[in-house]
Amino acid sequence: MSSLPPPPDIVRSAYAALVVTSLPEARRFWVDLLGFVVTDEDASSLYLRGYDELTHHNLILRSGPVAAAGALGFRVRSVADLSRAEEFYGALGCRTERVPAGFARGQGETVRAEDPLGFLVEFFAASAHPERLQQRYDLRRGAEVARLDHFNICVPDVPVAYEHYKSLGFGLSETIEDGRTLYAAWMYRKQTVHDVAFTGGAGPRLHHLGFFAHEPHSVLRMCDILGSLSLESCIERGPGRHGVSNAFYVYLRDPDGHRLEVYTSDYYTGDPDHPVLRWSVLDPRRRDFWGNAVIPSWYSEASAVLDLDGKPRPVIDIAQTAEVTVGADGFTVPAE
Amino acid sequence: MSSLPPPPDIVRSAYAALVVTSLPEARRFWVDLLGFVVTDEDASSLYLRGYDELTHHNLILRSGPVAAAGALGFRVRSVADLSRAEEFYGALGCRTERVPAGFARGQGETVRAEDPLGFLVEFFAASAHPERLQQRYDLRRGAEVARLDHFNICVPDVPVAYEHYKSLGFGLSETIEDGRTLYAAWMYRKQTVHDVAFTGGAGPRLHHLGFFAHEPHSVLRMCDILGSLSLESCIERGPGRHGVSNAFYVYLRDPDGHRLEVYTSDYYTGDPDHPVLRWSVLDPRRRDFWGNAVIPSWYSEASAVLDLDGKPRPVIDIAQTAEVTVGADGFTVPAE
Amino acid sequence: MSSLPPPPDIVRSAYAALVVTSLPEARRFWVDLLGFVVTDEDASSLYLRGYDELTHHNLILRSGPVAAAGALGFRVRSVADLSRAEEFYGALGCRTERVPAGFARGQGETVRAEDPLGFLVEFFAASAHPERLQQRYDLRRGAEVARLDHFNICVPDVPVAYEHYKSLGFGLSETIEDGRTLYAAWMYRKQTVHDVAFTGGAGPRLHHLGFFAHEPHSVLRMCDILGSLSLESCIERGPGRHGVSNAFYVYLRDPDGHRLEVYTSDYYTGDPDHPVLRWSVLDPRRRDFWGNAVIPSWYSEASAVLDLDGKPRPVIDIAQTAEVTVGADGFTVPAE
Amino acid sequence: MSSLPPPPDIVRSAYAALVVTSLPEARRFWVDLLGFVVTDEDASSLYLRGYDELTHHNLILRSGPVAAAGALGFRVRSVADLSRAEEFYGALGCRTERVPAGFARGQGETVRAEDPLGFLVEFFAASAHPERLQQRYDLRRGAEVARLDHFNICVPDVPVAYEHYKSLGFGLSETIEDGRTLYAAWMYRKQTVHDVAFTGGAGPRLHHLGFFAHEPHSVLRMCDILGSLSLESCIERGPGRHGVSNAFYVYLRDPDGHRLEVYTSDYYTGDPDHPVLRWSVLDPRRRDFWGNAVIPSWYSEASAVLDLDGKPRPVIDIAQTAEVTVGADGFTVPAE
Repeated sequence: MSSLPPPPDIVRSAYAALVVTSLPEARRFWVDLLGFVVTDEDASSLYLRGYDELTHHNLILRSGPVAAAGALGFRVRSVADLSRAEEFYGALGCRTERVPAGFARGQGETVRAEDPLGFLVEFFAASAHPERLQQRYDLRRGAEVARLDHFNICVPDVPVAYEHYKSLGFGLSETIEDGRTLYAAWMYRKQTVHDVAFTGGAGPRLHHLGFFAHEPHSVLRMCDILGSLSLESCIERGPGRHGVSNAFYVYLRDPDGHRLEVYTSDYYTGDPDHPVLRWSVLDPRRRDFWGNAVIPSWYSEASAVLDLDGKPRPVIDIAQTAEVTVGADGFTVPAE
Repeated sequence: MSSLPPPPDIVRSAYAALVVTSLPEARRFWVDLLGFVVTDEDASSLYLRGYDELTHHNLILRSGPVAAAGALGFRVRSVADLSRAEEFYGALGCRTERVPAGFARGQGETVRAEDPLGFLVEFFAASAHPERLQQRYDLRRGAEVARLDHFNICVPDVPVAYEHYKSLGFGLSETIEDGRTLYAAWMYRKQTVHDVAFTGGAGPRLHHLGFFAHEPHSVLRMCDILGSLSLESCIERGPGRHGVSNAFYVYLRDPDGHRLEVYTSDYYTGDPDHPVLRWSVLDPRRRDFWGNAVIPSWYSEASAVLDLDGKPRPVIDIAQTAEVTVGADGFTVPAE
Repeated sequence: MSSLPPPPDIVRSAYAALVVTSLPEARRFWVDLLGFVVTDEDASSLYLRGYDELTHHNLILRSGPVAAAGALGFRVRSVADLSRAEEFYGALGCRTERVPAGFARGQGETVRAEDPLGFLVEFFAASAHPERLQQRYDLRRGAEVARLDHFNICVPDVPVAYEHYKSLGFGLSETIEDGRTLYAAWMYRKQTVHDVAFTGGAGPRLHHLGFFAHEPHSVLRMCDILGSLSLESCIERGPGRHGVSNAFYVYLRDPDGHRLEVYTSDYYTGDPDHPVLRWSVLDPRRRDFWGNAVIPSWYSEASAVLDLDGKPRPVIDIAQTAEVTVGADGFTVPAE
Repeated sequence: MSSLPPPPDIVRSAYAALVVTSLPEARRFWVDLLGFVVTDEDASSLYLRGYDELTHHNLILRSGPVAAAGALGFRVRSVADLSRAEEFYGALGCRTERVPAGFARGQGETVRAEDPLGFLVEFFAASAHPERLQQRYDLRRGAEVARLDHFNICVPDVPVAYEHYKSLGFGLSETIEDGRTLYAAWMYRKQTVHDVAFTGGAGPRLHHLGFFAHEPHSVLRMCDILGSLSLESCIERGPGRHGVSNAFYVYLRDPDGHRLEVYTSDYYTGDPDHPVLRWSVLDPRRRDFWGNAVIPSWYSEASAVLDLDGKPRPVIDIAQTAEVTVGADGFTVPAE
């Protein structure tokens, strides 16, 4: 690793792209029900953001024949970091491409790469600034999402993912582990618990997108709205309090099965010697501080990811002991 | 008093009528901003209710040339109570009239009376049941008002008002007083702190309508929405915690200056020996538990009330020591 | 039924007695963790209440060799209702006894009865008034319970239980049913959704005691405290939103397995024509508005109840179709 | 400015020291009522922190004859930044001193300086890590403060203060201004709205310390506790929603008159092109989004600050137009 060129200076996780099979149904879910703000749109895409977001988008929904996760977008500090991204991933033997401003609406020149973990990642420095809506309480609806908070990805080998993101300059906030195995890890660039987390499992797959909301009330209200409309089956897990991160959360599934988390609370991690919090895989509170069992589908299901050509990446089986097989959460058999 | 006929069996405060000078502006305030549900309407009236309400209306807004408070509506237990109301008020020398079902939409036969305190009161037993919306969280907006909670009226002589409502079978929950004077009183039929409260002042005038909301969040959110739209001048007093009633509250003024309270929390008063809580007029916590001073307009301004013919009732000066002149809230001069 | 003497005028559910096998452990759970207020105590008993309660106790914990539920206590309107209780239950062929004031501390003369459903019920009119603590926010801890809200009991035959409480003058607020079967019912005297509810199952057993708290925050906080102390196994089900009652809830189990609910929200039911809300047994939202499955133990486990002599009542199997066997909640086999 | 040596790399505002005239009274206020955690103490000092804080202290209370604000402590990235601090302030002609680890308990070597604005500032890199208490919900009390958020200081000339902190690498998030005057500014190093804010006024004085809490509930609860104990006079202003920062807040005064803010919500400012939000001084929502007038004492009163020798700094009158004299908040006369 020591011979790698310097990584790009990543500011934070900024947006993700999802391929959805019905844009009208996706719009109903993400915009009408969850209350995401539409920054821009065209016939095949929706650009959405939270109420606090001051860049152009946190989520791009693109119409396509097969549901999948497209790119994970990271903001970098400056345009110079785009070349650093090309060199860094090039040195790792990864395919990259540079696309001009406007490749995604409202977004400057962008470097795209197939990362060593099998995910499509994108780096951009410049963004249009949309209207500031944070104090437009009259417009707020649904989960009142403020901004994207993190990506959670399924990887067959968690230590490999950890080393990769460590080489990108990410800090480590929390883990699930035991004496032999690292089952999951949470890593950050911005001063929160994470920008990216790894859940051990068949991968590469996108486990969920985490969106920040300001108050637990928003989590409860989102569930109440879904129940009101007999859409309670969209609620997969929670609400609950995480042990890891201490956040109050709920997991929802969109009409294509893409998973999102409405995530509140969190804590500051900006100090240079921020201590790592290590959870035992056998502590029933690590995934739910109140001891509620994780739903089997939450362990087994996730979104396929695409390569630079828009083709699904092959999924590789988990290469390590699975969290779900070691007696955690009362499961005694592998989830799938 | 002992020779009075039995009073009607009043269930609760149920609705009020307000005359507004612009129905479109009133609609924008009460419906679009505050989120009241429209049960019914015609060219000159709006019938509104809260999300929990299972009778036809909690508020009737009628278009008229001069802003005023019309009737205060009480639900009675049965149709037989309508005759009891006529006899009770007749024995007091009050004008009454009986109007047929439909006089107000969705409402059965009604007895109207000019009460001894100068207020127009209405009694009804039957109501249409509108659609149950309590669990339609997808529809909720604004202050998310559940139902009417109480009337607060200005009376020149608080003990007289207290005796009148006592004769109607109301219980007493709380007072503001000192060794010499009863400054204010809260009285109930339903099992809450009050259906009616008296504030000493020039009267008869309607001080405010209190509407119940389920969570403090609704009070804060309503203020945030008004601020978002630069309508913060509609917020007259609060948010705060009342000493009396322990409720978390805010007072708003509608475009005609009619005052309402969004009122949360409250407590159970249904036991037959429910103890009275008596506050000293000099306890700064009685009106705001956090010691925030009452706004002068809150003491001095209120809505004129109408008689059976729709004419404004003359206003009589306060006939007792005023709360605002005895050193409470830091005021040293009368508010008017 | 028509020849029954008039029933006692029941005001509300007021207290329950639980036999616990370790009073120190029970104290740690109910007082130290949940924050119940100790009104009084002796070597073998604790008298507890919520912060709003103005009678002497909502819960009596008594030390005993075997965990069980003792009496369910109802407040009646006047001392004359004690005789009515004796006559009413006597006419039903039930054993009754009258015990003097002080039989339970702080409580006036009391009539006890073994009711036709197999439960020990107690009726009292007079109570000592303890210190008013509602506005002592400095003392609040744990779940910040305000008062007892309701009893939920397991009965083999729900329609029989419904008819019995109907004969006692209880109103019906909500049901779970289908074209053939009444699976559960909620009935009230005070102006809330219920004072007593029936869950179909082996009985007589006490399913849970419901305690009212003012804010959803108290439910979440109670869970957080239990997680903090690695006592998350005390959390049996929830938090969640009920379809029935619309309340936000959590179910906890005490060290002897007695179940309680921390219950917030609720709605007004005081109007004489209050409409019944009937839920289909196949609506997954009826027990949890967000569709979360009911925990099997919640259906199968409950507390044995005692007779007038303190002996456990025999438990009779469910005599009707069980909610859990008709496809609700994804269960395909009887819970027991 | 261009010839200045590079500034120290400041991570965030970390702690403040206050001189209090009665340590037992201060302890009752900060620890018993507000719920600050005691990390350490000796006969003349208390070291306090919030529940999330992972360094040794956020607040040092020292006993002294005259109430005053001592140092404002900033954490720097590394030990090398201590020398940079000496050189930076030395180049500005400011007195500095370097004190060894342990000068404040739990804190590494520290550089102290009298800054050009007249404040005593301290820089440290190393800190002891106390026990992690974030998930000890069982211990939480009072305002449940998580960590120090910011310093708010009174300066006679806001643009001078702005330029000084700009030279230290602080970003600008929000301002209050008009075409001629900068009345107030909010500046940050960590990714929140501010680490330091300037209020135009006689100075140097400490206006308040801002402490972050996770939920609006904590603000309301703190006020309720103070009301419960008849200590409502400690509540100076609020609760309310700020226009600037969008935070939900309350201002309290300690027994020596030191002001603190319990501050919730806030937003992310970590992007390199984070846009500045500029408020008009005439917008009544800038200081309170709901239009509630600022309390006069909030504009006029503040804590004197000490120099390196522990002597109070002379206070210089405001050197620019005062916010309070330009028609904002309905004030028509200077507050002082």
